[in-house]
Amino acid sequence: MNESNPPVRVLIHGVTGRMGQALLRLAAERDDIVVVAAVSRSQPSQRVVDGVPHFAAAELPGVPPFDVAIDFSLPQGFDAILDLCAHRGAALVSGTTGLEDAQRHALDSAAGRIALLWAANFSLGVAVLSELVERAAAALPGWDCDIVESHHVHKKDAPSGTALALGASAEQGGAQPRYASLRAGDIVGEHLVQFAAPGERIELVHRATNRDIFARGALHAAARLAAKAPGQYRLRDLL
Amino acid sequence: MNESNPPVRVLIHGVTGRMGQALLRLAAERDDIVVVAAVSRSQPSQRVVDGVPHFAAAELPGVPPFDVAIDFSLPQGFDAILDLCAHRGAALVSGTTGLEDAQRHALDSAAGRIALLWAANFSLGVAVLSELVERAAAALPGWDCDIVESHHVHKKDAPSGTALALGASAEQGGAQPRYASLRAGDIVGEHLVQFAAPGERIELVHRATNRDIFARGALHAAARLAAKAPGQYRLRDLL
Amino acid sequence: MNESNPPVRVLIHGVTGRMGQALLRLAAERDDIVVVAAVSRSQPSQRVVDGVPHFAAAELPGVPPFDVAIDFSLPQGFDAILDLCAHRGAALVSGTTGLEDAQRHALDSAAGRIALLWAANFSLGVAVLSELVERAAAALPGWDCDIVESHHVHKKDAPSGTALALGASAEQGGAQPRYASLRAGDIVGEHLVQFAAPGERIELVHRATNRDIFARGALHAAARLAAKAPGQYRLRDLL
Amino acid sequence: MNESNPPVRVLIHGVTGRMGQALLRLAAERDDIVVVAAVSRSQPSQRVVDGVPHFAAAELPGVPPFDVAIDFSLPQGFDAILDLCAHRGAALVSGTTGLEDAQRHALDSAAGRIALLWAANFSLGVAVLSELVERAAAALPGWDCDIVESHHVHKKDAPSGTALALGASAEQGGAQPRYASLRAGDIVGEHLVQFAAPGERIELVHRATNRDIFARGALHAAARLAAKAPGQYRLRDLL
Repeated sequence: MNESNPPVRVLIHGVTGRMGQALLRLAAERDDIVVVAAVSRSQPSQRVVDGVPHFAAAELPGVPPFDVAIDFSLPQGFDAILDLCAHRGAALVSGTTGLEDAQRHALDSAAGRIALLWAANFSLGVAVLSELVERAAAALPGWDCDIVESHHVHKKDAPSGTALALGASAEQGGAQPRYASLRAGDIVGEHLVQFAAPGERIELVHRATNRDIFARGALHAAARLAAKAPGQYRLRDLL
Repeated sequence: MNESNPPVRVLIHGVTGRMGQALLRLAAERDDIVVVAAVSRSQPSQRVVDGVPHFAAAELPGVPPFDVAIDFSLPQGFDAILDLCAHRGAALVSGTTGLEDAQRHALDSAAGRIALLWAANFSLGVAVLSELVERAAAALPGWDCDIVESHHVHKKDAPSGTALALGASAEQGGAQPRYASLRAGDIVGEHLVQFAAPGERIELVHRATNRDIFARGALHAAARLAAKAPGQYRLRDLL
Repeated sequence: MNESNPPVRVLIHGVTGRMGQALLRLAAERDDIVVVAAVSRSQPSQRVVDGVPHFAAAELPGVPPFDVAIDFSLPQGFDAILDLCAHRGAALVSGTTGLEDAQRHALDSAAGRIALLWAANFSLGVAVLSELVERAAAALPGWDCDIVESHHVHKKDAPSGTALALGASAEQGGAQPRYASLRAGDIVGEHLVQFAAPGERIELVHRATNRDIFARGALHAAARLAAKAPGQYRLRDLL
Repeated sequence: MNESNPPVRVLIHGVTGRMGQALLRLAAERDDIVVVAAVSRSQPSQRVVDGVPHFAAAELPGVPPFDVAIDFSLPQGFDAILDLCAHRGAALVSGTTGLEDAQRHALDSAAGRIALLWAANFSLGVAVLSELVERAAAALPGWDCDIVESHHVHKKDAPSGTALALGASAEQGGAQPRYASLRAGDIVGEHLVQFAAPGERIELVHRATNRDIFARGALHAAARLAAKAPGQYRLRDLL
């Protein structure tokens, strides 16, 4: 870390959720990031927790200056944080799911003024794997491509969004992936992308064992995005 | 090997097929087995090959004395070899698929007089795995059980017969397996049986990389079966 | 669960350690176990926590009646809990490591009067794997046996105690295992026992992703051990 | 395949070895390659086999025109084929091991005049994996890197040359790999490169199940190299 760089000032939007809490906890371990505001939907029970000022969503316009917002909230709160970032000229990292088309278009427009990253999976490992999959698919034309994902038994959708994203990378490289899904135990998330030809095989695997990696990835992205020119970025652009 | 035991005298039924050829080739490497007759559907082109006398199916009644027949032929040739074994009091190892119900009943009846083994998979490893799966399922009640099998792209049926047999072992132990199938490259055959609970997982895997293992397993079974009392045996009973 | 059975009364010895805390937390989720005493080395700060009475080691003689003690403490505290169990006729489950020879002998002697289980690893999955390994080794004479274990980078000893225990099971079955160790990331614990022959391979794998499984295994063992006759038991005897 | 391109004319140097035989057999399956000369150390027993003219090493100067030589021979025969290629302006693909320093220098010098590829492993999959490993290492600074290779029990050296080459790729990307080696059964070759961080892991695996892939890779390289400008190439440059 270059000591002459001041820490990146971060606003956490959606601080009461599981991701918000993990972001707060893990940001405190980094010296390149300082959380200057934590925002929740309703009035916070305490004004300052562990040195971090808390705000209700309604108080957003009055939050102190920040370099980047990290948003893991709900679609109904998304417009306000996007507007604030655009107005303040701050970057935005968002993992909020369920956005409507109009909100996606608003994201696209805002990319003309600020640096933006929206992703469904903030694991650095998955971001790297996605790039490797595209490269392997491009280098191995004609090889069979299979994707197997395993998650805990409470996960409803199949294949997982991450499996589909990896499949899109494989297709980008020219492969035609097939999918299989396992639901077992409390598996946080495992993805295998296999390329097979007569006599040999490549297996590319990611195993997540702790959900903290998603918060770590979002913090990493925020630290990098703060210095970027306006535009839309993918997690793998910020590795 | 007890030196006082003479080698087991084996008849190979269906010698022109891929398995028959492998049986001939691999039997020659063992000193506990001697092939005394090789039988094919039609008249053999040579009467003796590498010291082994060859016969047409029509000549079956005149073959020399043998202790056990190994049969990898077709359903239409099955009755003749079963009858011969029963009549001679010889054991029978068979991997012939597509038998009709009447033929299965004939097998059951013959078990009162001779030692019999019919199996869909003659890999020793799969036989052992099958036993381990049953034991694991019985010892791990409530764990999620998943079976994933991978085979070459030309394999039509899914799940594989071996996967279903492993699943039956899991059910025997009280589990309720789910299945997934991959078809890729020229994979000879891979089977994973996974048991998962919160916080831990057991994976039991068999990988076949060479089809010779099936012929080796049948020869092993023949050597063991020759000394057995009448009855029906499974491969895992003969390990 | 048979409703007519009253819950097993458990004493937790070494309650302030990581295992002790996990035992307390997870025992509360079971209705076949009730914790009647939690014992720590020094005077507890609170006399009753969540309904569980706490005691200092010095107060051991006065604890209420219990059916089984679970001990994850230190060698210097071990003699007292063993003596108490023997005197009260209660069973003992212990995972305390570093015992001296004299303490091991005391364990052996006590087995004449009470039911005992000492183990280095309380994962049910590892206990089952250990049994499968012995069975596989016995059924696959002449196959190459390799054991690969992976743990977090802070683990000092290699091979792990669990790998050595699995290796002992393999030797019991007649195999001669070789060992390899990986130290990477924060891996809780993974063990692969591989059996290989020409053309085929069996891989038996255990993956631990959460340390709670060790506390769960100890509680399971306690519930089972309470009803057993005097003697020394292994975890796999109680599955 | 562009139909207007005539097939690449190939000379196979070292045709009596296992690789030489595989090259001959597999070249016959491709229509972008024609073998115009097969060279063995001593006088061939037949002058033409399956349409391919055979030559002794002493006859090298008189072989017909060719575009690329594929050399899997011995160090003592290497100088002659390198000289011939340089003299004829033909490309050279070589997998001959045990070259002396002077021979390596001769290779370097010849690269000014002809296209050259020397490699220890001609699997396309390994070439791709090597590139993925370098990319992953570069994208994942600080992650633990471990390489595990498995080969048949007759392989003497450990770690394998391929493992070391993968390790070099990892180092190129900034990682510091550690190695583990298994020797079991008749495993053709398996390589795992693992990257681990707290909470997640990436596993990059190559499994070879048939030695033909090495001959296929060399033929692929020859077909590509024939059209290249002078210089030294790696297999991954020709994917």
